Amino acid sequence: MPRHSLTITPRFYETDALGHINNASIAAWFEVARITFLESLLASTPGIAPNWVLASLKIDFIAETFYGTDVIATVTDATAGNSSLTVCCEMLQGGKLTVRGTAVLVHLDAVTKQPSRIPESLRERLAAVNQY
Amino acid sequence: MPRHSLTITPRFYETDALGHINNASIAAWFEVARITFLESLLASTPGIAPNWVLASLKIDFIAETFYGTDVIATVTDATAGNSSLTVCCEMLQGGKLTVRGTAVLVHLDAVTKQPSRIPESLRERLAAVNQY
Amino acid sequence: MPRHSLTITPRFYETDALGHINNASIAAWFEVARITFLESLLASTPGIAPNWVLASLKIDFIAETFYGTDVIATVTDATAGNSSLTVCCEMLQGGKLTVRGTAVLVHLDAVTKQPSRIPESLRERLAAVNQY
Amino acid sequence: MPRHSLTITPRFYETDALGHINNASIAAWFEVARITFLESLLASTPGIAPNWVLASLKIDFIAETFYGTDVIATVTDATAGNSSLTVCCEMLQGGKLTVRGTAVLVHLDAVTKQPSRIPESLRERLAAVNQY
Repeated sequence: MPRHSLTITPRFYETDALGHINNASIAAWFEVARITFLESLLASTPGIAPNWVLASLKIDFIAETFYGTDVIATVTDATAGNSSLTVCCEMLQGGKLTVRGTAVLVHLDAVTKQPSRIPESLRERLAAVNQY
Repeated sequence: MPRHSLTITPRFYETDALGHINNASIAAWFEVARITFLESLLASTPGIAPNWVLASLKIDFIAETFYGTDVIATVTDATAGNSSLTVCCEMLQGGKLTVRGTAVLVHLDAVTKQPSRIPESLRERLAAVNQY
Repeated sequence: MPRHSLTITPRFYETDALGHINNASIAAWFEVARITFLESLLASTPGIAPNWVLASLKIDFIAETFYGTDVIATVTDATAGNSSLTVCCEMLQGGKLTVRGTAVLVHLDAVTKQPSRIPESLRERLAAVNQY
Repeated sequence: MPRHSLTITPRFYETDALGHINNASIAAWFEVARITFLESLLASTPGIAPNWVLASLKIDFIAETFYGTDVIATVTDATAGNSSLTVCCEMLQGGKLTVRGTAVLVHLDAVTKQPSRIPESLRERLAAVNQY
């Protein structure tokens, strides 16, 4: 399984009066990156329900992001704990690293909605992702 | 019942690179104005379920809206058709008219989710609002 | 020149608690459609500065838009008045018409920032667009 | 100087299809909290230009935030390094801690736009804030 990457074309309304993309829009892009990553993972792991909550978010703004040039967001690492999944993401614009993000998600039991151990089948998929 | 007004303090992330509030943020503010209007109306009309869908939206941008000064959004008219409710809103910033909006909402039956006649009790409340 | 179309992949954060895409997100998508339309037009019309303000916005919500299926937004008409440009857009999801929008933009003089007649070179480009 | 607090009334469009406030909206609220904090600080410190960039953002989602109940966002700490300012914020909804955020801002020289030492006058204001 190759690394999960997606192209984000900055939208004009995502800029702010400082003339660059606002930090809250970048937090929103990070959600797009990790949700599409999880969707691609789950699509190849039948029977794993999509029950996740976001526990924490860390974003480093390495350089400004601007309107007018596509951004490539790549999930660079995804590490499973017991019920948690730590997803790392990098965003590049014009080949330059602009954003590095880390999100911690918690896997919930589909019925009880309580944290529950990430199933083995998903762990195997994650191991395959991280070989790249 | 007095006119429904609310104060919106523009947020920095609602600006765009043109240095003013982006039009999509103003569409979002209009939702705040009409939902809080409906909530205030329904709060005084027990038994009317909050089942509305937005059928159309019209916004005239009379003047630019800027960061740094509060906006007053007022529902200036609310007229019931059979199942539709047309809500008009004006926004002023620093006493100057900046936005005029009209939204058409459709009242749905709580069970069938089909358009259904706006109940008499709500019509009476609307009539009271429009006396102002 | 072919019709201007773009594909919008709905993002999870663009949904609201009613389980569909929120109307303010659709207003934002409409901005993406008309700005990329104008950019494509101006790219082929050297010397026309990108000086436009949004005068009004009208959106009809024909059907709900959901997360999980791409939306195709197409500029179906663009008609120049003296200084105004009326841009019509349709959005389809899974082949079904969900949104119809009309925006009126005003062309500003690059220096005075006052409304100014849309240049002939741009009118010719618009005529070519509307033949489709 | 008392602690900086502000009341945020959740807006319906800030919810997502999971029925709670989306994490990107909470990142946006955090911007409101720290910008209004800085504005209040600078208002009482004449001559300090508002030149800050966001270097990093960390948000812990302690509990879900819902539509329908006000959120109180409080800046709980603000510590100056050389050119950096670390701002901590807590959000409570209905008296319950829901969000804890930390942002690192960098003070820029108004002319060179390079990181520059936070002026003494602002450090004194910060010291006063942190006594609470």
